[in-house]
Amino acid sequence: MENKRSSSKATTTTTILLLILLSSSTTSQAMKRKIRLNQPCKTLLLYFHDIIYNGRNIANATSAIVGAPVWANRTTLGDFMHFGDVIVFDDPITMDNNLHSETIGRAQGLYLYDKKQVYSSWFGFSFVLNSSDYKGTINFIGADPLMEKTRDVSVVGGTGDFFMSRGVATLTTDAVQGDDYFRLECY
Amino acid sequence: MENKRSSSKATTTTTILLLILLSSSTTSQAMKRKIRLNQPCKTLLLYFHDIIYNGRNIANATSAIVGAPVWANRTTLGDFMHFGDVIVFDDPITMDNNLHSETIGRAQGLYLYDKKQVYSSWFGFSFVLNSSDYKGTINFIGADPLMEKTRDVSVVGGTGDFFMSRGVATLTTDAVQGDDYFRLECY
Amino acid sequence: MENKRSSSKATTTTTILLLILLSSSTTSQAMKRKIRLNQPCKTLLLYFHDIIYNGRNIANATSAIVGAPVWANRTTLGDFMHFGDVIVFDDPITMDNNLHSETIGRAQGLYLYDKKQVYSSWFGFSFVLNSSDYKGTINFIGADPLMEKTRDVSVVGGTGDFFMSRGVATLTTDAVQGDDYFRLECY
Repeated sequence: MENKRSSSKATTTTTILLLILLSSSTTSQAMKRKIRLNQPCKTLLLYFHDIIYNGRNIANATSAIVGAPVWANRTTLGDFMHFGDVIVFDDPITMDNNLHSETIGRAQGLYLYDKKQVYSSWFGFSFVLNSSDYKGTINFIGADPLMEKTRDVSVVGGTGDFFMSRGVATLTTDAVQGDDYFRLECY
Repeated sequence: MENKRSSSKATTTTTILLLILLSSSTTSQAMKRKIRLNQPCKTLLLYFHDIIYNGRNIANATSAIVGAPVWANRTTLGDFMHFGDVIVFDDPITMDNNLHSETIGRAQGLYLYDKKQVYSSWFGFSFVLNSSDYKGTINFIGADPLMEKTRDVSVVGGTGDFFMSRGVATLTTDAVQGDDYFRLECY
Repeated sequence: MENKRSSSKATTTTTILLLILLSSSTTSQAMKRKIRLNQPCKTLLLYFHDIIYNGRNIANATSAIVGAPVWANRTTLGDFMHFGDVIVFDDPITMDNNLHSETIGRAQGLYLYDKKQVYSSWFGFSFVLNSSDYKGTINFIGADPLMEKTRDVSVVGGTGDFFMSRGVATLTTDAVQGDDYFRLECY
């Protein structure tokens, strides 16, 4: 069972392509800030890494199942393509795809599996960045149909260096190890 | 008990009036797209249909209770106006109010009941549209005080054909059958 | 245990500074509304009050734990800094910091604890205002790292008097009593 899920899950790894479009240009104008209209876009490439609590990895886990349908439990992603499983996460964000690289922030919030027939998820979360280059948060919500090669979620707001940001983050496949680890790439 | 809840719930059926306002006009300008300022609005009329898992309908269910207060369970909406029940859904979207009409997409995400005294809910979800007319997603959050005739939630972003959308979706009453089925209308 | 958590939690009380920036200026223009560009900002100071269900206070409780990791329960906030606990709330909003002052609306939605090492949370919620001064809703999402003196979440949309609002709400510390009560200030 573990193997079956792991191998099927192996096709659902995730990479995030983050395209932040500063729709804040006009708003900021009104606020007496000067932002060049011809440079509305900022692009970031980031990775985040998710290790789900499985009953034995409390020290390493960066996320945990906190809700599930009555047929499922909270130490293993459930049947029916994990439908209804809700995961809270605090994932490290790095500039490359190495889990052990320097952390420039955390991806925090929740995701849930929302389809019985294929793997599909929905995210509500924030990037909390605190590096020499970026200080601030970016807030996201959106559908993540995992079987598509790329999936877009919305940037619905931001704070600090990302004040009033809007745009799109594109997710693509990177790597997964069993049910417990997957890596997300953002650019 | 089942009957009591069903009949009280019968007053809380839901219809969605979706008014998508393209605040993206100025943003898109900056991006060298041409959108006429005099046509900022796009309006859609859509229905979505929710069938909650009740312990016996796994084949038909489009949603499931995945979280609940300690006094409640995950096969029946709980006491105190279902306060605290969290439902994950993957509901078919149709152009008319017939559950069996052609599906043009799915409404995916979560809703929760958030008031002890009257039925009231809160939504975070996406429309994932994939028809000949529309390809893309629309992302929503907002309060849904079910006892009001119409309720507004926010369109907080979009992707694909709905890139950078913002606006309001208005929910009004359509139909409910017991606790297990309700239908949502969007226009 | 109760004492330990209560005292540590005492450092995490919350005050909301709400700065609503009307990025709707240009959008509204397109809609033939007239809003002065030099007055893009609206500021509100509001408090909201959260009393978590603890197994004995069903009459007073304004919120309840509805999801938790497998190691935790739904009547006490859990170990590891409450990591993974999900709370649904319907909190009264007042103009001053007195729980018993006149209620001008409700704060409704969910928050969750998302860090094992320190108290940190994430919010998705709405203000549903219904007073002589304000009718409408404001929708928020964002990270709330409780150990920071001030924390910003995004205003991602609004309805009614707050139609198309965007901006930032800043949270700062106000007061907490044990695990069961905290008060939020918004301005």
